[in-house]
Amino acid sequence: MITRMSSLFLRTLREDPADAEVPSHKLLVRAGYVRRVAPGGYSWLPLGLRVLRKIERVVREEMEAIGAQEIHFPALLPREPYEATNRWTEYGPTLFRLKDRKGADYLLGPTHEELFALTVKGEYASYKDYPVTLYQVQTKYRDEARPRAGILRGREFVMKDSYSFDLDDEGLAESYRKHREAYIKVFGRLGVEYVIVSATSGAMGGSASEEFLAVAPTGEDTFVRSTGSDYAANVEAVVTPAPAEQPVEDKPAAQVHHTPNTPTIESLVDFLNGAGLGREFTAADTLKNVLVKLTRPGAGESELLAIGLPGDREVDFKRLEAAVEPAEVSMLDEADFTRNPFLVKGYIGPGALQANGVRYLVDPRVVRGTAWVTGADKADHHVVDLVQGRDFTPDGVLDVAEVREGDPSPDGAGVLVAARGIEIGHIFQLGRKYADAFGLDALGPDGKPVRITMGSYGIGVSRLVAVIAEQSHDDRGLIWPRNVAPADVHVVVAGKDETLLAGGERLAGELAEAGLDVLLDDRKASPGVKFADAELIGVPTILVVGRGLANGLVEVKDRRTGERVEVPVDDAVRHLLDVVRG
Amino acid sequence: MITRMSSLFLRTLREDPADAEVPSHKLLVRAGYVRRVAPGGYSWLPLGLRVLRKIERVVREEMEAIGAQEIHFPALLPREPYEATNRWTEYGPTLFRLKDRKGADYLLGPTHEELFALTVKGEYASYKDYPVTLYQVQTKYRDEARPRAGILRGREFVMKDSYSFDLDDEGLAESYRKHREAYIKVFGRLGVEYVIVSATSGAMGGSASEEFLAVAPTGEDTFVRSTGSDYAANVEAVVTPAPAEQPVEDKPAAQVHHTPNTPTIESLVDFLNGAGLGREFTAADTLKNVLVKLTRPGAGESELLAIGLPGDREVDFKRLEAAVEPAEVSMLDEADFTRNPFLVKGYIGPGALQANGVRYLVDPRVVRGTAWVTGADKADHHVVDLVQGRDFTPDGVLDVAEVREGDPSPDGAGVLVAARGIEIGHIFQLGRKYADAFGLDALGPDGKPVRITMGSYGIGVSRLVAVIAEQSHDDRGLIWPRNVAPADVHVVVAGKDETLLAGGERLAGELAEAGLDVLLDDRKASPGVKFADAELIGVPTILVVGRGLANGLVEVKDRRTGERVEVPVDDAVRHLLDVVRG
Repeated sequence: MITRMSSLFLRTLREDPADAEVPSHKLLVRAGYVRRVAPGGYSWLPLGLRVLRKIERVVREEMEAIGAQEIHFPALLPREPYEATNRWTEYGPTLFRLKDRKGADYLLGPTHEELFALTVKGEYASYKDYPVTLYQVQTKYRDEARPRAGILRGREFVMKDSYSFDLDDEGLAESYRKHREAYIKVFGRLGVEYVIVSATSGAMGGSASEEFLAVAPTGEDTFVRSTGSDYAANVEAVVTPAPAEQPVEDKPAAQVHHTPNTPTIESLVDFLNGAGLGREFTAADTLKNVLVKLTRPGAGESELLAIGLPGDREVDFKRLEAAVEPAEVSMLDEADFTRNPFLVKGYIGPGALQANGVRYLVDPRVVRGTAWVTGADKADHHVVDLVQGRDFTPDGVLDVAEVREGDPSPDGAGVLVAARGIEIGHIFQLGRKYADAFGLDALGPDGKPVRITMGSYGIGVSRLVAVIAEQSHDDRGLIWPRNVAPADVHVVVAGKDETLLAGGERLAGELAEAGLDVLLDDRKASPGVKFADAELIGVPTILVVGRGLANGLVEVKDRRTGERVEVPVDDAVRHLLDVVRG
Repeated sequence: MITRMSSLFLRTLREDPADAEVPSHKLLVRAGYVRRVAPGGYSWLPLGLRVLRKIERVVREEMEAIGAQEIHFPALLPREPYEATNRWTEYGPTLFRLKDRKGADYLLGPTHEELFALTVKGEYASYKDYPVTLYQVQTKYRDEARPRAGILRGREFVMKDSYSFDLDDEGLAESYRKHREAYIKVFGRLGVEYVIVSATSGAMGGSASEEFLAVAPTGEDTFVRSTGSDYAANVEAVVTPAPAEQPVEDKPAAQVHHTPNTPTIESLVDFLNGAGLGREFTAADTLKNVLVKLTRPGAGESELLAIGLPGDREVDFKRLEAAVEPAEVSMLDEADFTRNPFLVKGYIGPGALQANGVRYLVDPRVVRGTAWVTGADKADHHVVDLVQGRDFTPDGVLDVAEVREGDPSPDGAGVLVAARGIEIGHIFQLGRKYADAFGLDALGPDGKPVRITMGSYGIGVSRLVAVIAEQSHDDRGLIWPRNVAPADVHVVVAGKDETLLAGGERLAGELAEAGLDVLLDDRKASPGVKFADAELIGVPTILVVGRGLANGLVEVKDRRTGERVEVPVDDAVRHLLDVVRG
């Protein structure tokens, strides 16, 4: 196929769009792949749509290869199924909601677990029907608070979502494993650099879950990886190793000290080290108690939660939000302190919390037998050597302190380093949450019902266009991997001479004849403009038909390396076929 | 490719769905092609999705063949562009509207003229850029008052919509002609029986317009065709031929008669024929004046409109609505008559209407020089021989009387007969409405702006699945045309014998190897169940691997004709390739 730039609906831009911050956004707009229509809403122009369709095709092929069957649901969905699973509420403002002309409630599907579960329930009855895996490539909607970075985080986007239905946990584990391998193949074929990280589950509820994160400094997700193993995890999913418990008997008794003007950890440590207590204190010896309010979806009232953690760590609110989801976290205001006079700001200790029935959860490092400096529930007073398991007993553990580079890896090998990534895939053993909500059972061989267990698996198809652009570009433009490039060869007719144009047309024709997709720059523009556009558009192989043609030579340029080779014109098609087909 | 029914996500149903009235709806559900998710919202199961994708492919190929370029817009669109063209208001309750989390107004796109016009304006500037034709295959949303007939009239559906942009009317006419020919090719390849009818334009505004209607007794659209030519038109678009004008001078003078108890045409005609006036009257000699109210979008108040038409005709409200669109029509209530005492029910005449400033439009048959019996604006009184152009002068012509079988064809050849159809395509010379709304100009060769003129062209892609089913089925099930069938050959293993299954598998493998798509019924079900399912599913060619296999024979059955041929097993693949490839 030949696409002629003289008639292609494409106008490249010299300037970056004003709202663009990340390279993929700038380049996809400048090279004419996408255009902004609304916040988080983009149109796909011809070249962009081609890349998107190529990615869809790779995804479909690998899904079919593991026996997944494609179906397609509406995007406009009735409220009732999402009410049954409480997601109508849990999704909060992220869900686009609307009413039809009769006043019935609808939503624009953010993900389709409910519909798949109901559909399988509608068709299948016997254990003999299972397992089954279904998928769709579907336009999804999420009313993101901050749509950003072009198609990296839009409000309307294309996802592949698949769902497995199994009779037992072993079946689910097998479906999960097959998806994991299919995803590895998909991202491999697309040439994406990625890591697989342990993940928390978001609003979907369930258990085993991994994310595929494309490595990108502009990514929104922070993850950590070990220097000593292949451990990698979302920061939200890092499990802090707990130190060994210690005996409490040999610890000195807790003592309250007058510590004037020490409302911060730093001022407290300074004071203690100047107080002649006979030892050196660090922030890690102090126990900081942070108070927040939790509001559960649908509940009118919020409840207090106190989090105890070593004074050298802050609470990571993303970890906290992930840990308490679907409850929402908010900070205390003055009215809350007035209402709870036992909370003495800067001097809060376990004593008053537990005496007043505030739920008190501590960092995994605060194990039995550890001794802490902490608030004495009285202004300007702290208690030293307050021992966990002797002087206070928390209500449980909450692992939400910030994760730092240099922290020991949870698998015991090496230390953690941080990196940033973009979520491109998510695989997830949902379990029976949705089957329970809809009574999805199979009639077992013994005539008794077997509750089905589900997995859900997503790939951000349209996002991948941006992810690949993010990982594969230089300062002159995009550099598409061959499998997703909008054309195989970009033929640049470098000059206005009719002979050159005829030569370019002839070569383009022969390449198309041989089965390649050719982008032919047959415009009247100057060679400089055409070269710049070719670099910007990013087809991996560029064929320059220029002055050399008079001597029977054309030039083949590799967009990524910049390498140029002169090739006899009669040999050009064979040469290019070798290059393209590797 | 082989699709095995033992694992295919397909369960056929013996019973028609309770809400189904038309054959396509019943059969597509029973054969497991689609499932209802919400009113007017259907999911596509694997076989249905295949048929849909095949139709999409045919449409894309013919669009590319006329140089149309595919792009893709969001379905979730901001209000502003639709506000600029007033369609935010004009669409009324048919538009799905919603707000985002910031309270901004959005809609789900029913059609995308605004976005295409804005996008072309954004990319193109010079007359050298034109003409251009863009298209998309897109999910559209319309909140139909009565979603019905399964996917025939859904609220979420797939359309191909394309838009042409030309510098002048000749260019638009050429773009229109190319689309018309492309549509003829598309529907020809899909094997649809259709007519092309002159159409009115709906809410889109503009001029030349034709609809492609699939002929189907269950269709919602009535159209008429001539017995003497290839004239066909939507009833809304029929132009009633006006008779020749007559001289007014030789007509007898108008005379008011006391016509007691004649509020209906029938009672009036009876009275006149018994009144000894020396001639015979029919309903066609009377002039009936029908009053309605028109409300323009956005206008608070309605205005009165009087329609004068021969007494043997009724007003066709679909024609009236189409003629006055976007104004809405409503009937007068008692309060209206109280407010306008000059309207004497049953005896309304042109005199009082025109004396009181009511807009008065008449049927094309009410030409100058025609004499009528009509109301005298006084109870129990009519006037005879009231002559158009002498005794009253209407404000204009309004062609909204019912069209009847037997009416003369507007092209003068033959008479009209009625038929029913389903709209599958619409081509439309929009003109400059949208270019005017957005100031879409090209800089002309003389440096002056040239206002662009647009065409819009739609094909109901998902609807076509139902249309084809509607036109191509029998009482046992669907019969797909080869180009859209979910498989090329349906291999039925008719028996549980392992040898038969092995034979079926081997033949399916060879057919797939030869490039055919095979649906293989490898289930443990009885031959009777399998045969019934094969008839229901409707793959055009069925290969039965049964008892004959022992003697080296298999049976090839044509789903449409029912014809069966025994074929030596070694010859089966070649035979089937001939059948499938024609």
